[in-house]
Amino acid sequence: MRAERILGVDPGLEVTGYGLVACEGRHLRSVASGTVVTDPHRALVERLVELHARFTQVLTACAPDIVVLEELYAHYQHPMTAILMGHARGVLALAVVQQGIPLSCYPPTHVKKAVTGNGHATKQQIQRMVAALLKLPQLPEPNDVSDALALALTHAHTLQQPYVPPPRRTRRALSPALQAALAETRS
Amino acid sequence: MRAERILGVDPGLEVTGYGLVACEGRHLRSVASGTVVTDPHRALVERLVELHARFTQVLTACAPDIVVLEELYAHYQHPMTAILMGHARGVLALAVVQQGIPLSCYPPTHVKKAVTGNGHATKQQIQRMVAALLKLPQLPEPNDVSDALALALTHAHTLQQPYVPPPRRTRRALSPALQAALAETRS
Repeated sequence: MRAERILGVDPGLEVTGYGLVACEGRHLRSVASGTVVTDPHRALVERLVELHARFTQVLTACAPDIVVLEELYAHYQHPMTAILMGHARGVLALAVVQQGIPLSCYPPTHVKKAVTGNGHATKQQIQRMVAALLKLPQLPEPNDVSDALALALTHAHTLQQPYVPPPRRTRRALSPALQAALAETRS
Repeated sequence: MRAERILGVDPGLEVTGYGLVACEGRHLRSVASGTVVTDPHRALVERLVELHARFTQVLTACAPDIVVLEELYAHYQHPMTAILMGHARGVLALAVVQQGIPLSCYPPTHVKKAVTGNGHATKQQIQRMVAALLKLPQLPEPNDVSDALALALTHAHTLQQPYVPPPRRTRRALSPALQAALAETRS
């Protein structure tokens, strides 16, 4: 059985973390991880070009079967940082597709729940669980790397238990009859 | 005297407006304008790839000497739209630099002031002034196109009167003595 190579990526204009996990059945192994850092003293557009070029090198070196990103969410604490992250995320996603690699996204709460069992886990809890699941000799640093590895682990987990995105309306809002009908359609 | 070809671009994931202005001394002429629209039913990453490819075609066809974008600002009314705009803006800026074309940015209030004389002009006022300055037979539509042409006109204006970004602290906050010293340093 060939190992599935999963590259988790935590995008940022300043620091982008990445982590490559090889998944062979139930056996998981951390293959490579690191960061792409851009110089905050350079112009935004130069940083985007640098990020695109260096991340393309990472993709070539890692040769992943799939790249996993965090889904966007509605409420970011720092809007300007989120917009700059958007620039970085756009350029990284473009690089992935230009290399012909499939891309998948999971919501942050799903990643936290898949890795720690708690959808509201802290960065430290994620870091410790990532280290435990991948049997790492030390905690993965910085957080951008542990978050990237958590994304890769979430996808590995999903290979065993396929992820079904929650319906737009919460299940609680559906009548029992409609829920039953929906369950029949899915089965 | 060779005309300077200035391409203004108003980035958006759904609609990106562009407008090419040729500037020969004081003579300004609208050469081309249009929009790049991506399908809202497709995945974000597919839209980014489409936007990058189609905007690269626009760059090739327009052959601008410079591309002009709006500077980012701190407070967007719709944070999620701003983050998605960030994805689009990142991909567009990357395309510009990949084509070896210089890129310049101006703050929105500077663009409004340069085109209408009022830093808080409405979209309609901009649209009318753009039509008047470029002697267009009708108002440029949609707003994404008139905003893009306004950016190109702002840069054309700057070729005659170089733009100096305002200092971080407002001049009013400086003492007269410090203002005089600053003026001496600049002269």
